[in-house]
Amino acid sequence: MAGESEIEPLNLAGGLPDYEGLRIVEGGGASSACGFKAAGIHAGFRADPQRLDMALIVADEPCPCAATFTQNIFCAAPVTVSRAHLDGVSYGTARALVVNSGVANAATGSKGLEAAERVAEIVGEAVGCPACEVMVASTGVIGVHLNLDTFVSGAPLAVSALDEDGGAAAARAIMTTDTHPKEFAVSFSGDEIGYAGCTFTVGGMCKGSGMIMPNMATMIACLTTDAPVAPDVLHEALRRAVNSSFNKVTVDSDTSTNDCCYLFASGAAAPSAQPFDPASDAFALFEQALTAVCETLARAMAADGEGATRLVTVRVVGAATDAEADAAARTIANSPLVKTALFGHDANWGRIAAAAGRSGARFRQEDVDIDIMGIPVLRAGLPVPFSEEEALRRFERPEIDLDVDLGAGTSTAIIWTCDFSHDYVTINGDYRT
Amino acid sequence: MAGESEIEPLNLAGGLPDYEGLRIVEGGGASSACGFKAAGIHAGFRADPQRLDMALIVADEPCPCAATFTQNIFCAAPVTVSRAHLDGVSYGTARALVVNSGVANAATGSKGLEAAERVAEIVGEAVGCPACEVMVASTGVIGVHLNLDTFVSGAPLAVSALDEDGGAAAARAIMTTDTHPKEFAVSFSGDEIGYAGCTFTVGGMCKGSGMIMPNMATMIACLTTDAPVAPDVLHEALRRAVNSSFNKVTVDSDTSTNDCCYLFASGAAAPSAQPFDPASDAFALFEQALTAVCETLARAMAADGEGATRLVTVRVVGAATDAEADAAARTIANSPLVKTALFGHDANWGRIAAAAGRSGARFRQEDVDIDIMGIPVLRAGLPVPFSEEEALRRFERPEIDLDVDLGAGTSTAIIWTCDFSHDYVTINGDYRT
Repeated sequence: MAGESEIEPLNLAGGLPDYEGLRIVEGGGASSACGFKAAGIHAGFRADPQRLDMALIVADEPCPCAATFTQNIFCAAPVTVSRAHLDGVSYGTARALVVNSGVANAATGSKGLEAAERVAEIVGEAVGCPACEVMVASTGVIGVHLNLDTFVSGAPLAVSALDEDGGAAAARAIMTTDTHPKEFAVSFSGDEIGYAGCTFTVGGMCKGSGMIMPNMATMIACLTTDAPVAPDVLHEALRRAVNSSFNKVTVDSDTSTNDCCYLFASGAAAPSAQPFDPASDAFALFEQALTAVCETLARAMAADGEGATRLVTVRVVGAATDAEADAAARTIANSPLVKTALFGHDANWGRIAAAAGRSGARFRQEDVDIDIMGIPVLRAGLPVPFSEEEALRRFERPEIDLDVDLGAGTSTAIIWTCDFSHDYVTINGDYRT
Repeated sequence: MAGESEIEPLNLAGGLPDYEGLRIVEGGGASSACGFKAAGIHAGFRADPQRLDMALIVADEPCPCAATFTQNIFCAAPVTVSRAHLDGVSYGTARALVVNSGVANAATGSKGLEAAERVAEIVGEAVGCPACEVMVASTGVIGVHLNLDTFVSGAPLAVSALDEDGGAAAARAIMTTDTHPKEFAVSFSGDEIGYAGCTFTVGGMCKGSGMIMPNMATMIACLTTDAPVAPDVLHEALRRAVNSSFNKVTVDSDTSTNDCCYLFASGAAAPSAQPFDPASDAFALFEQALTAVCETLARAMAADGEGATRLVTVRVVGAATDAEADAAARTIANSPLVKTALFGHDANWGRIAAAAGRSGARFRQEDVDIDIMGIPVLRAGLPVPFSEEEALRRFERPEIDLDVDLGAGTSTAIIWTCDFSHDYVTINGDYRT
């Protein structure tokens, strides 16, 4: 496993979709928004002292917090405890998120639940807030119990390391088999939307890598904003952004036990203002910013899937329903045959067609068009001759686009994934040893 | 690709489930039943002259024939043509099945349909029967047109090679990336079931390997029997046998465009007898024999999945419904994380639990038990300490059993699959080159 010094931030240049009015915050992340501090330290969950393994994000004041969680029945103890905390404080206010890497605290029963609750108490004490205002998250090996002593010694260290520039260290501390930290932030001006002189920021970090097909949630992600947004509105905005970003990623069709995505809104960029009206231009721009951050982090997660060499974007158009568009795109994106072909630089449209054909989407073969990296390879269900040399040249690009038109309607879907390499087998055939 | 001489038949000893009254036919296959001859020749679909690439199974007389086909919308031309032939002759009578390997005749449009129809004519002429009595099947690369000249020259050669012992050559001729031919046959006595002095046989062959998650059908399989069975009864018997055998196999969750399974019933073992009464003991024994052959071939197909090193049997019990039992078993069997762990000899119950948890089956974590190769690893949702040394010893076995009790009901399911190795990536990352 690479030491911290070898880890380069993922190059996200050009990764921002074309949103009017948004500006990328250079080097931005989970502590870019006003009113937040972050830290990433080595607390001792991992043996390697160079490896950061505890992240802490703290809001200056208790603030609205929304979250989405894994739908896996085998959900981990921190998911259960955090959900109870948020529900228990009326949908929901929170102050801090603590994440440890190395141990997932999943399949740990009542002892695991008690441990997760105790973590919230320990961190709350160090931060200076009640336990119910602390969100907890864990990632790593399943079925192993947390060492609470590591939290007792680590929490004060993390609190003393809290800094407005601490986002980068926090993003490193939540990594498992990720090869890059993933963080991103955008800002927008309040001048034209009724908040003259204010600049609002939405930033965040996430970790991904394996066991990734988020379902109504994602791997661990933490988003922050200094925009003033009321709790119930915040939750709906997060739900929509997650659905169009993290929930569109699949690495290996495996949904984790620990998926969670948090969004804290400090309101610190306009301290005396009313919360954004959900019908206002300000809220619309905020949602665009939130979606831009989520999409960028989601794409970074797909590009950094275990063993991945390429980010793959599957776009399906012309489906009869939204559900069928999603099913076709997801089936193509999860097909081991499609993914190994892409790893082998093989423009194998036959496997793409076969995956669409078994997806449950309704269409006729003779209506289907397929493009691979912009090269027409199938028209009206029949192969089109193409230059293999040109295809090999385009396979050198860091991103691969697969475009499928089912010719059966007007619904569309997009799914991000990665190719399937020898390294995926190596990483997952020998994870615990 | 191995030459024919290097290919060893798959060892199926011990593969027969414990069916009373059935006897394994030594070296048996698709031409073991009375009234059938088979051949496998090199016709020229493949460049290597050592490689058999055309199989022919012919009944002495037109006889009842049942079939199941892929549900993939991108179904291949031979599937469409054979289905029309069977439907067109009243559910259905047939005389012959011809299979070529190397070219799948899939995604070939109306030209492909004409070619498949022409293949039936060419082979019918050589055999001496109308085209509508010829079933056609193809396997190999998608999107390439069949060379009809190869059929014109090959069909007479195949007919002259027809032999009662030709099943073994036919089983070799349908192989693609299979490493072993797959054939099997059982027989049972008519003495106690009202057919004194008669011996009935059910035999068959199949090919599998990649793009395998049959859906109401299988990869290419051909079964024959000399039992007297009426067409409509034969179809129902085949449907049931396929559902409990080939449809329980998944290699990589990819359903092929060319899946098909044929069953011919010559009645030649009791030429003057009435067809089996579906309510009789004779028919019950016939169904057991059919299921035994299908199950054995299905398990052989899973064990010989692309890159496979182990046959994996996933058994789920205690599910709330049959559909949920199937979903849980299938999700575990398709999980790349579970399959790569097994390849790495890692008794990783966490990934099995996580797959069950996202399968859609309803249960509570605290009710779940998991055994890996007979070793209890999870009880009541909590890990049980076990000897890693003992687990490593059991991983040396050729078969791996995963047993999951959801504790939520009485429904059960079984799915056969294989592990996921570097060789799967190698084979499929470089298939067309």
